[in-house]
Amino acid sequence: MSDAPINLETLRQRIDELDSDILRLISERAECARRVAEIKTQEDPQAVFYRPEREAQVLRRIMELNPGPLDGEEMARLFREIMSACLALEQPVKVAYLGPEGTFTQQAALKHFGESAVSLPMAAIDEVFREVEAGAVNYGVVPVENSTEGVINHTLDSFMDSGLSICGEVVLRIHHHLLVADTTRRDKVSRIYSHPQSFAQCRKWLDAHYPHAERVPVSSNAEAARLVKTEWHSAAIAGDMAAKLYDLTRIAEKIEDRPDNSTRFLIIGNQDVPMSGEDKTSIVVAMRNQPGALHDLLEPFHRHQIDLTRLETRPSRSGVWNYVFFIDFKGHHDEPRVSAVLEEVRLRAAEVKVLGSFPQGVL
Amino acid sequence: MSDAPINLETLRQRIDELDSDILRLISERAECARRVAEIKTQEDPQAVFYRPEREAQVLRRIMELNPGPLDGEEMARLFREIMSACLALEQPVKVAYLGPEGTFTQQAALKHFGESAVSLPMAAIDEVFREVEAGAVNYGVVPVENSTEGVINHTLDSFMDSGLSICGEVVLRIHHHLLVADTTRRDKVSRIYSHPQSFAQCRKWLDAHYPHAERVPVSSNAEAARLVKTEWHSAAIAGDMAAKLYDLTRIAEKIEDRPDNSTRFLIIGNQDVPMSGEDKTSIVVAMRNQPGALHDLLEPFHRHQIDLTRLETRPSRSGVWNYVFFIDFKGHHDEPRVSAVLEEVRLRAAEVKVLGSFPQGVL
Repeated sequence: MSDAPINLETLRQRIDELDSDILRLISERAECARRVAEIKTQEDPQAVFYRPEREAQVLRRIMELNPGPLDGEEMARLFREIMSACLALEQPVKVAYLGPEGTFTQQAALKHFGESAVSLPMAAIDEVFREVEAGAVNYGVVPVENSTEGVINHTLDSFMDSGLSICGEVVLRIHHHLLVADTTRRDKVSRIYSHPQSFAQCRKWLDAHYPHAERVPVSSNAEAARLVKTEWHSAAIAGDMAAKLYDLTRIAEKIEDRPDNSTRFLIIGNQDVPMSGEDKTSIVVAMRNQPGALHDLLEPFHRHQIDLTRLETRPSRSGVWNYVFFIDFKGHHDEPRVSAVLEEVRLRAAEVKVLGSFPQGVL
Repeated sequence: MSDAPINLETLRQRIDELDSDILRLISERAECARRVAEIKTQEDPQAVFYRPEREAQVLRRIMELNPGPLDGEEMARLFREIMSACLALEQPVKVAYLGPEGTFTQQAALKHFGESAVSLPMAAIDEVFREVEAGAVNYGVVPVENSTEGVINHTLDSFMDSGLSICGEVVLRIHHHLLVADTTRRDKVSRIYSHPQSFAQCRKWLDAHYPHAERVPVSSNAEAARLVKTEWHSAAIAGDMAAKLYDLTRIAEKIEDRPDNSTRFLIIGNQDVPMSGEDKTSIVVAMRNQPGALHDLLEPFHRHQIDLTRLETRPSRSGVWNYVFFIDFKGHHDEPRVSAVLEEVRLRAAEVKVLGSFPQGVL
């Protein structure tokens, strides 16, 4: 926009032109997606049109190319919706999630599949698995770890009895800040409002930085933010949304004790997802109970320089072995070095099950 | 796409090209929106950038121009999100709504303002009004009528004590269908599953068409749909989502007793919204209690051929008059024939308050 128009009227006309062009291009994109679907159906009448690895690639590319001024995450969100709408035209993706509606799991499902997907709340994690297994839906969305409850064991356990694989992951990040009104001085804070759960999540930081401030629990972090607006000696612990809404100043950012204060969800399905270029693999390994078993298990990963991103130990439910390990690492099971490691792990373990390779969460 | 590419690879390349173009155009649109904001701020440092009438015009234009294959409503949804993202770049719209999260009111707020708006749940309708009046948020979203509770009197009453105006409306439509599995015959349905609320909403239709079928209440309409999947003599009352999800056949559509089974919400704010071309106006009128008062009140509307879309009577809370009427009609208070009618109404009534003129709900 070097020879940019300069008055409101010209700008609005330019916006109308741009909108017409965007409309035309999105429509052509939908037409292309329709033809892709036609060709795929000719090749295989049962073809699934949703391809997680392709979607991850498109979004990564968009974020790379994005020239601004919109930030990459926002632009990716718009493209997620465009892809979701194009896909729904031919074959709406059906998704079951752990309900009820309005929970973070629904938010994760919408974030991943876009608003055009058909989504339905289930009452329990098993039900989500069951609906996917029965073929009533294409995918399920279940929480796998969150900052308040830690790992959702029930989800991990469900995989042990299930033939489903992991097709993707979604991460919702949650940050807490210490917020004050403009007129408040950092050293004058004598009272802090927040929801009890947020106090728990920021306890260490508060003990270190505001050991003498009175902590007043309130019904929500939004309520906390509202209260400090008129109290010059008070602060609130709350997130970005409340800070923006009440124009509060952040005197400290990201004060949660665990830096990865986030909730992670898994997308489960029947699909073996091809490589996207940046993938993760989840496996579950049963070991015989003997000294050094875990060390033996992890050694091949170290030798092949494969990054472990997570390891959970769970008691086995069978008498044969004592523990099972849920391991997440970077890489796709079709990569030669990953399949080499899996081969070695199979020799050392009582049992190995690959839960799936999937694109690393894009946003 | 007359000289269309024919294989998957070419189609995917074309989609990538289209995505690059869409990305470029959305970015330029955001840049234009930023300049609009700059110019407005120079003219008035307190300027509000969100203009309901402009947004309604853009969406109507998009729906008119939309060539398919995406349907107009879906395309409008995408543009709503694009506009919401562009606006949030400069000045995120702040919205308070009647909570908790996950309710239809939140859905209405997101539908109207897009996902980039900053929105916060409030515990009561008064609180929504208070937050807007205090200037903590730009807009509030409150339900004004729904199919289960009828008119939300509390919302109407709040307007009597408030200086806020109505800046817009959002309608969420809710349809019920009678659904069966493929193998079920219409005349063999001996049992019907549904949520008790849906039974209530379809009672007359059921009495007329399936007087002898057993009605079995279940916890949700989704559950009802799931059950009939395997019962050849059963049907479920449920919505589009459940029909799609379980691939059920609609043996009867829109069986709700009231054809306008929907929930309507109002956007409240401080703004006087200019004409968008298709507008509605809400007024509240206090009449002295005398024979023929209502007829007198309505006569000027009839004479000027102004469409009334709604009329509600509420007992007055003051001793001076006995009733107040909430009237919605088509037109904008800046139109000459509307202001003529308002002039006449003012002569006949004890008091008239224009709650606002606003664009008719687009979707």
